[in-house]
Amino acid sequence: MAFDRLIKAIADKQNPTVAGLDPKLAYIPDYIKEQAFEKYGKTLEGAAEALLVYNKGLIDELYDIVPAVKPQAAYYEMYGWQGVKALAETIRYAKSKGLFVITDGKRNDIGTTMEAYANAHLGTTEVQGEEIEAFGADALTVNGYLGTDGVAPVTKVCQGTDKGMFILVKTSNPSSGEVQNQQLEGDETVYLHMGMLCEQWGKELVGRYGYSGVGAVVGATYPEQLTELRKELKHTFFLVPGYGAQGGTADDIGGAFDSNGLGAIVNSSRGIMCAWQKEENLPPQDYAKAARREALKMKELLLDVTGEIKLP
Amino acid sequence: MAFDRLIKAIADKQNPTVAGLDPKLAYIPDYIKEQAFEKYGKTLEGAAEALLVYNKGLIDELYDIVPAVKPQAAYYEMYGWQGVKALAETIRYAKSKGLFVITDGKRNDIGTTMEAYANAHLGTTEVQGEEIEAFGADALTVNGYLGTDGVAPVTKVCQGTDKGMFILVKTSNPSSGEVQNQQLEGDETVYLHMGMLCEQWGKELVGRYGYSGVGAVVGATYPEQLTELRKELKHTFFLVPGYGAQGGTADDIGGAFDSNGLGAIVNSSRGIMCAWQKEENLPPQDYAKAARREALKMKELLLDVTGEIKLP
Repeated sequence: MAFDRLIKAIADKQNPTVAGLDPKLAYIPDYIKEQAFEKYGKTLEGAAEALLVYNKGLIDELYDIVPAVKPQAAYYEMYGWQGVKALAETIRYAKSKGLFVITDGKRNDIGTTMEAYANAHLGTTEVQGEEIEAFGADALTVNGYLGTDGVAPVTKVCQGTDKGMFILVKTSNPSSGEVQNQQLEGDETVYLHMGMLCEQWGKELVGRYGYSGVGAVVGATYPEQLTELRKELKHTFFLVPGYGAQGGTADDIGGAFDSNGLGAIVNSSRGIMCAWQKEENLPPQDYAKAARREALKMKELLLDVTGEIKLP
Repeated sequence: MAFDRLIKAIADKQNPTVAGLDPKLAYIPDYIKEQAFEKYGKTLEGAAEALLVYNKGLIDELYDIVPAVKPQAAYYEMYGWQGVKALAETIRYAKSKGLFVITDGKRNDIGTTMEAYANAHLGTTEVQGEEIEAFGADALTVNGYLGTDGVAPVTKVCQGTDKGMFILVKTSNPSSGEVQNQQLEGDETVYLHMGMLCEQWGKELVGRYGYSGVGAVVGATYPEQLTELRKELKHTFFLVPGYGAQGGTADDIGGAFDSNGLGAIVNSSRGIMCAWQKEENLPPQDYAKAARREALKMKELLLDVTGEIKLP
């Protein structure tokens, strides 16, 4: 139910980290690319093959220490349907290793169209009576600008499962305030208004640990808002981007967690994926080992903030 | 530059219609599905094949009377990467027939991630020095909740081309007001604030007909807001969903157009695609002919509203 499986994995591994899988070609060691391009030429197939090999290597070194991975759909779509196939295969591989998979697609639409996205990414698609999993992730990021019509189809697919969504509330980027920080009449901000909608949308989906299947994206780069939103949104689990490369530090995210050290999972993409590019004299074949070292370092920094993570 | 090519096509064809291509299996005649499933089994490949055959039939009957088509990404993603491949092939086929293609993906993200979406859907992807078109549409719908950081990467890709984007401003669904109609301090609504941002984002992309490459999505179901936004957003071209199946009528959309009959393109998806299901005794092989008849009917209704469409 809801994010119970994710939350239990965070506690079991004592690690509130989600590792981003945003595999631009520039992040991938040459030897992987050379093998892929030798096989498929300088094509989208070749690029997609390199992405998948790179991801599998990372997953093999991370699955026992992080509870979740977050592939960013954009980095697969840019390599065409071939890249999207690599996304599907990445998700399948990560799940086979017991990881909770959050597809970062920021999808949004209404009615039957949003239902199509929900079925695509979290549910199954009916093909002449057969139910087939298209992508089969465990959670999807969603943009809530269209209101309830854009969220209800996802809650419907998540009902009774341990899948869920994360709605953009206060994003980590510098310009997020242009819309999200606008003050509404009655003194609420747009982001707080969106956050309160998350509480409402999640009401029927609260799991055993007190959090619902409707989470919120709140950036590590805005510590004050993290603290404010944690206080206001008691049943809303946070996905926290912006840590590391975007400037958020472990100190910034203290406010995201509740007294059990739960309530949030912190994303690092480039920090973990590209760790190999920062270690001197590292054989490129050890790129995933460097990712593991970085992930363990991050885990320690986060545990300093949360203290021991306890299931309530 | 900007939407000049789209606008010229609207004037040339005297038709401000965009035909939605949202090919759910339920909309596709049995004979197409049977052939596809015979070839590929009851699989996502089979479904994707049916989608593509169906779309090509529609495009063949529509390309000389409508200026544009709008495939909705969700209906392809629900059939997995195989469906996404059918999306890429649909776009390529539509472009080969001279149609302007708007991918309705409502994508949104920031920085290099949004750049990846822009390259995926509108630009090209670099693969070891080769520039390859992944999807190659002419326009993309975008959700602006993240502010400038989520839009600038798209304007960068569109700069100097005749490609563009449509930002969600006031969407057609019943719950769109939950966020979009909120009143800001100073009496602006969230949707008007978003609209004014579109004007600002498009400033450097205004084409020869006075409209920029940053358009806005404004629903046919909200005629007052259409009129208000047309008046306030002088350089912003509108994509108008919600006509037909969602309840918007030709009378509702008068406010979307300027005095030349330009300023907006009106979407119909199910109305055109599913026309064949409403004609009695129609041989299913004529499904696309029924779509053509419906599209011609819609064109006449819209021209009654716009009058003769003139290039300024």
